Amino acid sequence: MRLIIFIGMLCWMVAGTVSAQTLDSPDGNLKLNFRLLDDGTPVYSLQYKGKDVIKESKMGFRIRPSYVFNKDFTITDTRFSESDTTWKPVLGENSEIRDNHKEMFVALQQNGTGWLLNIRFRLFNDGLGFRYEFPVQKELRNFTLDGETTEFRLTGDHKAFWLPGDYDTNEYPTTVSKLSEVASLTEKVRQEPLAAKAFTPGLAVQTPLMLKSADGLYINIHEAALVNYPAMCLDLDDKAFVLTSHLTPDRNGARGFIQTGSVTPWRTVVVSDDARDILASNLILNLNEPCKLADTSWIHPVKYVGVWWEYFTGQGSTWAYTNNQDIVIGETDYTKEKPNGTHGANTAHVKEYIDFAAKHGFDGVLVEGWNEGWEANFAYIKEHIYDFDKPYPDFDVEELHRYAAERGVKIIMHHETTSSVADYERQMEDAFRFMADNGYDAVKTGYVGPIIPRSEYHDGQWMVNHYLRVAKTAARYKVMVNSHEAVRPTGLCRTYPNWFAQESARGTEFESFNGNTLEHTTILPFTRLMGGPMDYTPGIFEGDLSVYGSNKAKLSTTLVKQLALYVTMYSPLQMAADLYQNYEKYPDAFQFIKDVAADWDNTYILEAEPGDYITIARKAKGKNEWYIGGITDENAREAVIDLSFLPEGKKYEATIYADGKKADWRTNPKDYVISTKKVTRKTVLKQRLAPSGGVAISIREL
Amino acid sequence: MRLIIFIGMLCWMVAGTVSAQTLDSPDGNLKLNFRLLDDGTPVYSLQYKGKDVIKESKMGFRIRPSYVFNKDFTITDTRFSESDTTWKPVLGENSEIRDNHKEMFVALQQNGTGWLLNIRFRLFNDGLGFRYEFPVQKELRNFTLDGETTEFRLTGDHKAFWLPGDYDTNEYPTTVSKLSEVASLTEKVRQEPLAAKAFTPGLAVQTPLMLKSADGLYINIHEAALVNYPAMCLDLDDKAFVLTSHLTPDRNGARGFIQTGSVTPWRTVVVSDDARDILASNLILNLNEPCKLADTSWIHPVKYVGVWWEYFTGQGSTWAYTNNQDIVIGETDYTKEKPNGTHGANTAHVKEYIDFAAKHGFDGVLVEGWNEGWEANFAYIKEHIYDFDKPYPDFDVEELHRYAAERGVKIIMHHETTSSVADYERQMEDAFRFMADNGYDAVKTGYVGPIIPRSEYHDGQWMVNHYLRVAKTAARYKVMVNSHEAVRPTGLCRTYPNWFAQESARGTEFESFNGNTLEHTTILPFTRLMGGPMDYTPGIFEGDLSVYGSNKAKLSTTLVKQLALYVTMYSPLQMAADLYQNYEKYPDAFQFIKDVAADWDNTYILEAEPGDYITIARKAKGKNEWYIGGITDENAREAVIDLSFLPEGKKYEATIYADGKKADWRTNPKDYVISTKKVTRKTVLKQRLAPSGGVAISIREL
Repeated sequence: MRLIIFIGMLCWMVAGTVSAQTLDSPDGNLKLNFRLLDDGTPVYSLQYKGKDVIKESKMGFRIRPSYVFNKDFTITDTRFSESDTTWKPVLGENSEIRDNHKEMFVALQQNGTGWLLNIRFRLFNDGLGFRYEFPVQKELRNFTLDGETTEFRLTGDHKAFWLPGDYDTNEYPTTVSKLSEVASLTEKVRQEPLAAKAFTPGLAVQTPLMLKSADGLYINIHEAALVNYPAMCLDLDDKAFVLTSHLTPDRNGARGFIQTGSVTPWRTVVVSDDARDILASNLILNLNEPCKLADTSWIHPVKYVGVWWEYFTGQGSTWAYTNNQDIVIGETDYTKEKPNGTHGANTAHVKEYIDFAAKHGFDGVLVEGWNEGWEANFAYIKEHIYDFDKPYPDFDVEELHRYAAERGVKIIMHHETTSSVADYERQMEDAFRFMADNGYDAVKTGYVGPIIPRSEYHDGQWMVNHYLRVAKTAARYKVMVNSHEAVRPTGLCRTYPNWFAQESARGTEFESFNGNTLEHTTILPFTRLMGGPMDYTPGIFEGDLSVYGSNKAKLSTTLVKQLALYVTMYSPLQMAADLYQNYEKYPDAFQFIKDVAADWDNTYILEAEPGDYITIARKAKGKNEWYIGGITDENAREAVIDLSFLPEGKKYEATIYADGKKADWRTNPKDYVISTKKVTRKTVLKQRLAPSGGVAISIREL
Repeated sequence: MRLIIFIGMLCWMVAGTVSAQTLDSPDGNLKLNFRLLDDGTPVYSLQYKGKDVIKESKMGFRIRPSYVFNKDFTITDTRFSESDTTWKPVLGENSEIRDNHKEMFVALQQNGTGWLLNIRFRLFNDGLGFRYEFPVQKELRNFTLDGETTEFRLTGDHKAFWLPGDYDTNEYPTTVSKLSEVASLTEKVRQEPLAAKAFTPGLAVQTPLMLKSADGLYINIHEAALVNYPAMCLDLDDKAFVLTSHLTPDRNGARGFIQTGSVTPWRTVVVSDDARDILASNLILNLNEPCKLADTSWIHPVKYVGVWWEYFTGQGSTWAYTNNQDIVIGETDYTKEKPNGTHGANTAHVKEYIDFAAKHGFDGVLVEGWNEGWEANFAYIKEHIYDFDKPYPDFDVEELHRYAAERGVKIIMHHETTSSVADYERQMEDAFRFMADNGYDAVKTGYVGPIIPRSEYHDGQWMVNHYLRVAKTAARYKVMVNSHEAVRPTGLCRTYPNWFAQESARGTEFESFNGNTLEHTTILPFTRLMGGPMDYTPGIFEGDLSVYGSNKAKLSTTLVKQLALYVTMYSPLQMAADLYQNYEKYPDAFQFIKDVAADWDNTYILEAEPGDYITIARKAKGKNEWYIGGITDENAREAVIDLSFLPEGKKYEATIYADGKKADWRTNPKDYVISTKKVTRKTVLKQRLAPSGGVAISIREL
């Protein structure tokens, strides 16, 4: 009865109309149950090693104007299959990824309407993915979702690492609390000053949502392959501990415009009793489509510096070239405007960064503030804010292209849209053609502030389509994209590997104003990074901003923790974010940033507890080099670093960048000690980490 | 004290802070008063020959979130000037237009805020224009209008020719009633089935609003030069007979995003005691900016036929190539789809129209339904509906380009957007490049249904900017634009003469479903056409649609009235809209359509009464040929056609296309008589018009 299909895929059929079905994960640890309730409501549940993870939870939709599409169903078909394949990401934490899952496909028909709905479940050893599919059918063709009614019915009052529900931003600090405490803490965190906020009307949290149960289960809920659909928050019933899908609406309340013949994103539940398995999971990548780009030879990891941090330090550098707030883009002749003398993106200054990048082996130099329009960009009223192919008069595109190319460096384009997105789309082809003409192969996009068109939110379907449209357009021009303030990622970097990084969370820039918590980066890999790489822009050596002027902000980490982030925060795009002068002051510590890889053959999660600590080792792609990063929260700790991942029979030298004995993020962040040590795969290093400190290690074969 | 400036412009100054000012029209018939009320509210009033036209009416704005910007003003400066110039439109009813006006410029400052506001009045012999100007200033820069508070305080319960206030459509039938009756009639007319409707919340009417006072004054209220600002409806206080500017909001209620350094459109009041002066007025064109296109040599009048009326007749011809409602644009391969066999825009059929156009001297052939996407275009849910550079498999663009060019004919492009406007803008450059590559020099755009982005209405600022963006883009490709379902025009064809026609009212297509009233075309020149040319698509000879199938619709005119419309409905773009076979049946009547010009040296309004009758004579541009059109409403009448506009000392032959003795729009529309007659400038023709009939006359020098 079994039929073997190529590359290890197995397929079998079961009598179509059985009303309850069970699926086991390949290792048998996870068990999925699906059935219809008496009223025809589809429900699923999930167990891990015999423990409930998700109790029986309802599934389905509401359709506008007032159809329920979540009950009165009959099962018309059920199909099972199994797959065990391996694929290679273009860039990644591992050069090969195994996709081993069992699948159950259920075809439903609603009584009365006759409408068809399919649900596809995939069960991996590390979790569950399921999605809805709307088959082409005669009676249902184009419709508008009023909501998705997918539940995640939890077993108790778990500890949660959460952001409050918001349609426009994921830059809130993460709050750690029990689910029952979310309501009382939401109001406060929503006061965080952010450029665009759109609160969910009820109590809700964002995904990726990290949970820890009282009995030691780690559960991560997110989604995979978010395409042509709104991003999902989770409504929270804090009495019954039920999470329910809350799709980002447009401003008219529409929650997705659907044409049949399409599928929803996958809803994902990654689960383990070992927190390290959460970080090691490739479930979300596995649920995304294979790479759709025919040629990926031009996609590569990027380490970069840039004209950026100086805009945040308070030293007076400006994105804008003039102080004239009355400029009119397309009409103002900037060559006739009076320069303000503080413009950061000027040719001479950019050359300093190019020189520095060339000297220290960086691939790129990001330059923000190079193009016309920054003077009045934060009015959030104008639609034509910037021209994306018009440099300021003091930014010589051709000369800088020549200068950088001679030195083997590329300038990284910056497209801050200030969320005037329809206007950006008008200019997009010209903007990318401009990049192609001037030697750029990467762009940082930005979406600060509320969206224009004013019907839209950052996380709604329209914007979800926009971000992907940018990635696809960029691919035509062989440009890599790093989007900031965009919807949080869902593993699409597998399918469109040129969309190689995003911000989409609270990054290093916040260290210069409202600050990041001491545990912030021990949480992000369990939340934001579940969906894909983050351009966190670490590497701040001078954490006391008062040295520049009136800004009193202080970095929340030791210097060494900044180094460790290059390993713990996976990204094929890594910035050395500080002013280059600060690196020149600490060349020995800077050496780690120069050395560390951004693309990997293997990743080993050595220690992990969300909100407390993370220690990760990685093997550089194609090299016999390993890099280790360990970080801790406000508590000093001893990291136990087992080097058994090293190949047998060889000897290695480890260079250890450690917090000094007196290191403390607040009082003495720059106290570090660099030492070397011979190691083998039998070595177990014990390294002390200061409060909000870290350890960074590079290992080379001798 | 007077200073003469070149081309007859005069300028003088008056003590800056006088609180009341008066301006007279050049001929002294109109008098404008402006002053500040005691609370600093600016008010104006207008008299014509000593009679009040607009009683003292308030001016100003509300600014978000809650600023009043319509009182507490002080006058800081007042300046007067006078201008008498002549300019030549690229296309028009007259080859030269005189602009003779006096101007008063008032500078205001608001106490408290210190904000500056200027008002510029221009008084012509035929009416008033005024606009607000927001000067660049330190304390006010980018702001959002909550509303404009401009009043038009009428003297009584005038007879009005009105459309109900609506942000999305101007395709309602015109209702004729007293202002006091608008409220009771609004509900009914709003039931008119139209593809997109967005009612104003209160009682409101659209502009151009035609009014007639009990004492015989004709008053037309509209606006000129609508650029980067929402279109205006008029709120109606039907007790005090006050009209107040009601700016089209976006769906969030914002009524205009303003950057200082800009101006509003002109608010216009055309007034006379002779209805003919309203039709003869060039006030709105005069208030628009001169032509901004450097080269206009490629802009020309167009007479055209097309694959169009067959989609409305009920004969079964379809825009769509297949019956597959599940196509996905960009994914569906149409060459693999089953054709439905009813697709109108097929190569062979289009060639028939090209042959016909070439034989009879038409410039163009419109082809609707040529491009991919028509199958599921009316779902109003999908955003990517059409591709504008992908023809259906049976429409051979290159072959048709060759075939038409050989015969001296151009195919007219069709861009039905179905109001998915952001997507149209994404495709726009490619779409116009496609036109340039394939020999098109004119495009008909369409905006059926609600707008995507879903924050927008057809008449809001965002769309106003869109329509102009299309016209400007088209100009770069030397393409003329005829926009359908766009915001009604405001004279911008002076500034962008390639935007040479619009629909923006209830056109001939409605004759095939809900019908047009018998008086419809006796009103439109007083309303819709005040702003610019209309692509009304007259020329229907076979008015009984039951000959084609099940459609029982009957044309609301005689055949001769259809001919007369080519003169009474000014447009440099004129369609012979009927199936070509119907013209072949009536070649003698068709001769008038073949002969009539579409661009003119002079226009003579011979008789006019809104809602009753219109008789107009025009001299063809650059030719000694004159064309006369006379139409009437449901009442038969005798048109008195005084030919004294003909040059002296010459003899002429008039060919008169008259309703036959038994002609009647309902029972015998095709009864016509064609005769010729020798005439001179002393001739006065008396022509009987049947109920909803007309007369058409061509005059040639002997």
